Amino acid sequence: MKLVTFATGGQAAIGRVEGDQIVPLPPHFGSMIDLIIGWPEWEALIRGTHAAPIALKDAHLLPPVPRPGKILAIGLNYADHIRETGGELPQRQIWFCKQPTAANGPYDPIILPKVAQQIDYEAELVVVIGKGGRAISKEDAPSHIFGYCVGNDVSARDWQMATSQWMLGKSFDTHAPFGPWITTADEIGDPHGRGVRAFVNGEIRQDSDTSNLVFNVWDQIAYVCQVMTLEPGDLIYTGTPGGVGMAMKPPRYLKDGDLVRIEVDRLGALEAVCRAEE
Amino acid sequence: MKLVTFATGGQAAIGRVEGDQIVPLPPHFGSMIDLIIGWPEWEALIRGTHAAPIALKDAHLLPPVPRPGKILAIGLNYADHIRETGGELPQRQIWFCKQPTAANGPYDPIILPKVAQQIDYEAELVVVIGKGGRAISKEDAPSHIFGYCVGNDVSARDWQMATSQWMLGKSFDTHAPFGPWITTADEIGDPHGRGVRAFVNGEIRQDSDTSNLVFNVWDQIAYVCQVMTLEPGDLIYTGTPGGVGMAMKPPRYLKDGDLVRIEVDRLGALEAVCRAEE
Repeated sequence: MKLVTFATGGQAAIGRVEGDQIVPLPPHFGSMIDLIIGWPEWEALIRGTHAAPIALKDAHLLPPVPRPGKILAIGLNYADHIRETGGELPQRQIWFCKQPTAANGPYDPIILPKVAQQIDYEAELVVVIGKGGRAISKEDAPSHIFGYCVGNDVSARDWQMATSQWMLGKSFDTHAPFGPWITTADEIGDPHGRGVRAFVNGEIRQDSDTSNLVFNVWDQIAYVCQVMTLEPGDLIYTGTPGGVGMAMKPPRYLKDGDLVRIEVDRLGALEAVCRAEE
Repeated sequence: MKLVTFATGGQAAIGRVEGDQIVPLPPHFGSMIDLIIGWPEWEALIRGTHAAPIALKDAHLLPPVPRPGKILAIGLNYADHIRETGGELPQRQIWFCKQPTAANGPYDPIILPKVAQQIDYEAELVVVIGKGGRAISKEDAPSHIFGYCVGNDVSARDWQMATSQWMLGKSFDTHAPFGPWITTADEIGDPHGRGVRAFVNGEIRQDSDTSNLVFNVWDQIAYVCQVMTLEPGDLIYTGTPGGVGMAMKPPRYLKDGDLVRIEVDRLGALEAVCRAEE
């Protein structure tokens, strides 16, 4: 199933995507996080819901989880991206995060802030946590995944590299686009071996595959939840392959008017215009 | 005013602290974040509320904001702490964060995880954001502060230093104790010049004053909200002075049974027993 959060007339609602239409779900299912929590009980009900559909093109898609509790992200997790940044294959997983206020809809503009000059894209597979927990084993990790999204880990490189800690450079408002919908895990099966691509103004910049992850999705979940309890609707950005703007010679950062498209096989695509902050 | 979130019989409620008692607020004020949002309108109502009080000692105090949207923290922000870590006075503010699932009540145990060996305390003044916003100037920063808490930025040094990014080592469950209540900003006035102290088993380990902050509270708010929108109930841990366990020779980390007390002048004290994870 494909699930969206969308706005019609200023109100947020959730719905099921079927072809080029949204079947709205009745308000008693609550928000996407409520739905994720209720899923084991409600799945059949949600599949069986009928309502007057809305054309996808007439809806404003919001971030599928409008305000995730956590947006976790792993760094340097594709060999070719590690090479282009001049780093070494990490022995331990390197985790950082984006702040929840960075969440952005799949087709909403990416704002290029006045105070940052080096805005870059990062195409990624994003995991949406279903059943929460701590100390989850690799073997149990799949059963804790609700679904998957396409994500863009937008990065202000000048802020990211200004100190030892990347968090601020990863957390500008609008810099965590994901979606366009959540594809539930049962439709995807093994998330490894899925193509991940980024295009800027139609030019392909990143073109890899999640089978190239240094630490795969199960490794990531098992590792991070040694530390913290994962909760329904938490997001994990699973790393980006080579081809980021920062690594080009000379670097090519995003400019006002650029169109950034991020695709992951079978999960759809994000498409955002970059807009200079006014 | 001093405001708490507390549990009686498993239900969370909010209340006003008066002396050694809590005056519960009626449920229609909602959660602490709801109260912070409603404060400009509700302040007089909340001050005037009367209800049968509960002895503080009979209530289980929860984190005043049970699940903050963000827990931001600045690093290396007292000159003596910078010296003891061997670092240099930063030219730019160094920001990291703790995950919201790390929030812990003021008197709740700090769990020493099986997977981490070097657990340390950090006494801090914590800011609670009131009115949200982005691009807030230093001059306007005071008007965006709802109040202040005592905080302990508990840090698993082995995890913090295992990679370049500190986030995991700062985000173990229970490792963000704060409270014991929120003292509203009007009671505190200028938050600089307040004593900040840490004690382990009664031995004083940190003893400084917020006038020694390298970047003061107003600087911090103005800086971080160049990047992200601050929201009601977001927390800022404002840095820790010298005297952490890691910097002792040899280092002295927290052990099962240790009692950690953190004080900030006029804001009360946290008191937590460390417990090895079972």
